[in-house]
Amino acid sequence: MRVVRVPLGERAYSIRIGEGLLSGLGQDCERLGLGRHCTIISDSNVAPLYARRAAQSLERAGFEPREITIPAGETAKCLARVSDCYHELARHRAGRDSFIVALGGGVVGDLAGFVAATYLRGLALVQVPTTLLAQVDSSVGGKVGVNLKAGKNLVGAFHQPRLVVCDLATLETLPPRELRAGFAEVIKYGIIADARLFRRLERDLDPLLRRDGGALAAVVARCCAIKAAVVGHDETEQGRRAVLNFGHTVGHALEAVFGYGKYLHGEAIAVGQVFAARLSARLLGLPEGDVDRIRSLFERAGLPTSVCLSPHQRENVSRAMRLDKKTSAGEIRFVLAERIGQVVWGRAVAASVIREVFDLLLRKPSGGG
Amino acid sequence: MRVVRVPLGERAYSIRIGEGLLSGLGQDCERLGLGRHCTIISDSNVAPLYARRAAQSLERAGFEPREITIPAGETAKCLARVSDCYHELARHRAGRDSFIVALGGGVVGDLAGFVAATYLRGLALVQVPTTLLAQVDSSVGGKVGVNLKAGKNLVGAFHQPRLVVCDLATLETLPPRELRAGFAEVIKYGIIADARLFRRLERDLDPLLRRDGGALAAVVARCCAIKAAVVGHDETEQGRRAVLNFGHTVGHALEAVFGYGKYLHGEAIAVGQVFAARLSARLLGLPEGDVDRIRSLFERAGLPTSVCLSPHQRENVSRAMRLDKKTSAGEIRFVLAERIGQVVWGRAVAASVIREVFDLLLRKPSGGG
Repeated sequence: MRVVRVPLGERAYSIRIGEGLLSGLGQDCERLGLGRHCTIISDSNVAPLYARRAAQSLERAGFEPREITIPAGETAKCLARVSDCYHELARHRAGRDSFIVALGGGVVGDLAGFVAATYLRGLALVQVPTTLLAQVDSSVGGKVGVNLKAGKNLVGAFHQPRLVVCDLATLETLPPRELRAGFAEVIKYGIIADARLFRRLERDLDPLLRRDGGALAAVVARCCAIKAAVVGHDETEQGRRAVLNFGHTVGHALEAVFGYGKYLHGEAIAVGQVFAARLSARLLGLPEGDVDRIRSLFERAGLPTSVCLSPHQRENVSRAMRLDKKTSAGEIRFVLAERIGQVVWGRAVAASVIREVFDLLLRKPSGGG
Repeated sequence: MRVVRVPLGERAYSIRIGEGLLSGLGQDCERLGLGRHCTIISDSNVAPLYARRAAQSLERAGFEPREITIPAGETAKCLARVSDCYHELARHRAGRDSFIVALGGGVVGDLAGFVAATYLRGLALVQVPTTLLAQVDSSVGGKVGVNLKAGKNLVGAFHQPRLVVCDLATLETLPPRELRAGFAEVIKYGIIADARLFRRLERDLDPLLRRDGGALAAVVARCCAIKAAVVGHDETEQGRRAVLNFGHTVGHALEAVFGYGKYLHGEAIAVGQVFAARLSARLLGLPEGDVDRIRSLFERAGLPTSVCLSPHQRENVSRAMRLDKKTSAGEIRFVLAERIGQVVWGRAVAASVIREVFDLLLRKPSGGG
């Protein structure tokens, strides 16, 4: 088992990474000194697979777990489902010493985390991410929240978990499309912080996509370590933490315009990262060869690198980008790469340049529409 | 003008108390170094009276205020109205450098504060309380949130304002019943922390109820100073801050059972404080003479000190008390007074004792069922 520590003073916590950790969840929670009452929040895909194992482990350690199951999918990451969870917690008489276990992918982690951040002004939270994307990204760092129709993650909080348990065995049941989507965040860590990781991905992508346990453990741990270091320096995104948003401005806009369903988050940010790479070539001199390496790694992972938009959709994507949280005083700011492994953040980019580079990403509609 | 400082390190802020401060709101905000875009959240009672003056002051200082008006009354303190505010903020393209001005009583402050705590993971907040209760209590200390059907303030966050502006002139338009309800919190400060303040209230209650400016300024400032000191020692209620909840366990239960409408918060906690005083006499030897002084001061302020409940309502009040946030592991914990000016917190009280003391508060239904 590998352990990565997130260095946040009195809010510091561990990320535990390994095969079969779910059966030890109860023991892990015991060490945190939490109350007995807890609620496992999961979704309709993950709960049938893993909720029982999680609950049994918690029961063996003397906890009294309840369960809340939300519908699977990004559309559940909304205020209405948050409200459902609140009412269930009230029905269960959850007290301030209760804690929440978020068992699932990014949607479950973000939503359950927001519920934990706000119910009784904050309950302890344990993240048990069961997708690659959630293990390397969304379960770590304390960003929690839900979407509005107007945009992704517009409502939320910073609420650090007390523990993150990444059981790699849960990735075995992950649909291949979800696994590939997770690699969009994995590749991101290579681009923003670690050229060696990027080269390793170029070399080992095939065994990784086959879920080779050893290779996966090392890569997940490396991604978590990068995220932990960034978050440790800038918990609430006053500056440097913005580098984690590489590719996310366009990615979030695509998700918003297509209604949180057509594109998985990983797929949308794959397109967004290729866009950001092209923008980086144009504005910071990122070598064209690096843009190609980036595009080609996403393609090998089976992720989209271009997009087909009607003029109307294109207009909506531009509007959604302006509404993104990263917007400040009307300017759109980007994270851009100087080279693979090194990025700068907060670069304001003129609308005309965005339009031009966007053209390079557009596929022609394949007739008819 | 009086200024009270809330000592919270990098989250420290000032409470400004005086007549006519609303016209200087813009200048006060200017000193905080906030973005230009801001949103005044007010309610349908307060907005027609003061929103224009607030907006003009902000405009004169170079800000671009927008306005959101929620319906007046405790029933608006709910998730549905929070959601309305989120959508309005999205429509206004509020960015991370926007700030929220909460202009109104406790409902507006709590709701607008929760919106500020959670929109884009947190916007800056300026509290402009226009009721006595909000000026001495809810606008200070960072507790924000909304009610669920199951209980009051079950959803919320800690989100300190950047500034609190108490314009005593706004109390002139406050309905007499609301003014009296505010004195329930004022009297509370005397009981929990300041016997001299309690004696002063016994002496000056009549001029205070006539809104005598000088007397009011001193009392509001003293209440804010007590709250600032308590919050400064225990921002997130790990311990001592609980003393501020004197009378609130029963108070919140009454509000929940009667559906947030029959009793104003101040009225409900007046009943709750008399209950807590009786419980204190029974368990801590608070002299009966002090119980009488407490009851009689609430009566002079025109506040209820007993309650009429059907057996069914009584059962519901007990259930709501068990659901209160202050409950831990099923026990109901109380803040109790050793003497006027001195309380202890976290005292678990047996259900049988609660029942007995509760009997003393019950008025017989006045016939007819």
